Amino acid sequence: MGKVRVHNFTITLDGFGAGTDQRLEEPFGDGVDHLHDWMDPLFDGTATGLDAEVGLDAESFGATIMGRNMFGPIRGEWPDESWTGWWGANPPYHHDVWVFTHHPRAAVQMEGGTTFHFTDEPIEVVLDRAKAAAGEKDVIVAGGASVVRQYLRAGLIDQLDIAVAPILAGAGEPLFADLGNALKQYEVVQQISSPAVTHVRLVRR
Amino acid sequence: MGKVRVHNFTITLDGFGAGTDQRLEEPFGDGVDHLHDWMDPLFDGTATGLDAEVGLDAESFGATIMGRNMFGPIRGEWPDESWTGWWGANPPYHHDVWVFTHHPRAAVQMEGGTTFHFTDEPIEVVLDRAKAAAGEKDVIVAGGASVVRQYLRAGLIDQLDIAVAPILAGAGEPLFADLGNALKQYEVVQQISSPAVTHVRLVRR
Repeated sequence: MGKVRVHNFTITLDGFGAGTDQRLEEPFGDGVDHLHDWMDPLFDGTATGLDAEVGLDAESFGATIMGRNMFGPIRGEWPDESWTGWWGANPPYHHDVWVFTHHPRAAVQMEGGTTFHFTDEPIEVVLDRAKAAAGEKDVIVAGGASVVRQYLRAGLIDQLDIAVAPILAGAGEPLFADLGNALKQYEVVQQISSPAVTHVRLVRR
Repeated sequence: MGKVRVHNFTITLDGFGAGTDQRLEEPFGDGVDHLHDWMDPLFDGTATGLDAEVGLDAESFGATIMGRNMFGPIRGEWPDESWTGWWGANPPYHHDVWVFTHHPRAAVQMEGGTTFHFTDEPIEVVLDRAKAAAGEKDVIVAGGASVVRQYLRAGLIDQLDIAVAPILAGAGEPLFADLGNALKQYEVVQQISSPAVTHVRLVRR
């Protein structure tokens, strides 16, 4: 059985996974310029040192769960089914992806093996589906902050690899907020800086 | 003219400078055990590497400003003047210290050159007094989080050296909260991990 993981979720030094006013032109909102710049070398294969060690780890993941804001900028009812994510015809997932939305629609099969499923089911149910699809591989809860927080509150995440970028947003979507006592279940087992970010690993005790 | 600085202010990974229910037995409250352990080697002179480089830097400071919670556990009116801080007869400041309180009382001269002044004046006025006392040296805004936030909001801090400890508190006194646009004035110029904590330096642009 694989693990349930958060991987390379990047937050600002003041704790935000996204800024304010997320929209088509600014998918991560305002105030978080350069938040994910550290990942560019991961995608183009030029990462070195600690960043490369943490890596994308894409081969470990057999299914992905994400929130609607991570899937796209459209809120409320879908005007039509033309929006199929930020990632073009061949998204970098290559497996089943569950997208939370209050407005479910038919699944979309993309090139390269990615299928987007849209769901308004409870997070536990969706996780079970994702685990079944992932088989021996891990499930990644990809984001945004709101979905990660929901799974954290429910104690359903086994391991989180978080990157803290040396950026101050001032406002936005906080990762560590409204978690009640959920964080007491987790331990920080690693906190190391690369020249670009600080990599932090949380595991459930 | 010296700078106005925050130095070695330590926060949890989730951003808290103190936990909940600060009191005599737990000056930093619950949920933040070991938050300041990394500083022990600084005080006993055994620190090495990056922690030692950042250091206490005590000789740079000519005056200190702190909040009442940092001075002691007593809230409201002082029952008497017997409480003179957590630090015994010879506090480690050896200069003038201003303590914010809604209940000012007579200044207390301690052994070793530390004098505690109690004030309910505006933060700008207190800073001017501290600057005058510090002369060419720097003024340290020592904490807690609430006092640091007030000076940050007013844009009065030149440099902050913050230590992020690999600890999750879940709740408490946040450092980066309710700062409005104040953080936009600051830039993270350094973020490096020692084996114990991540040292972050913010400077005003």
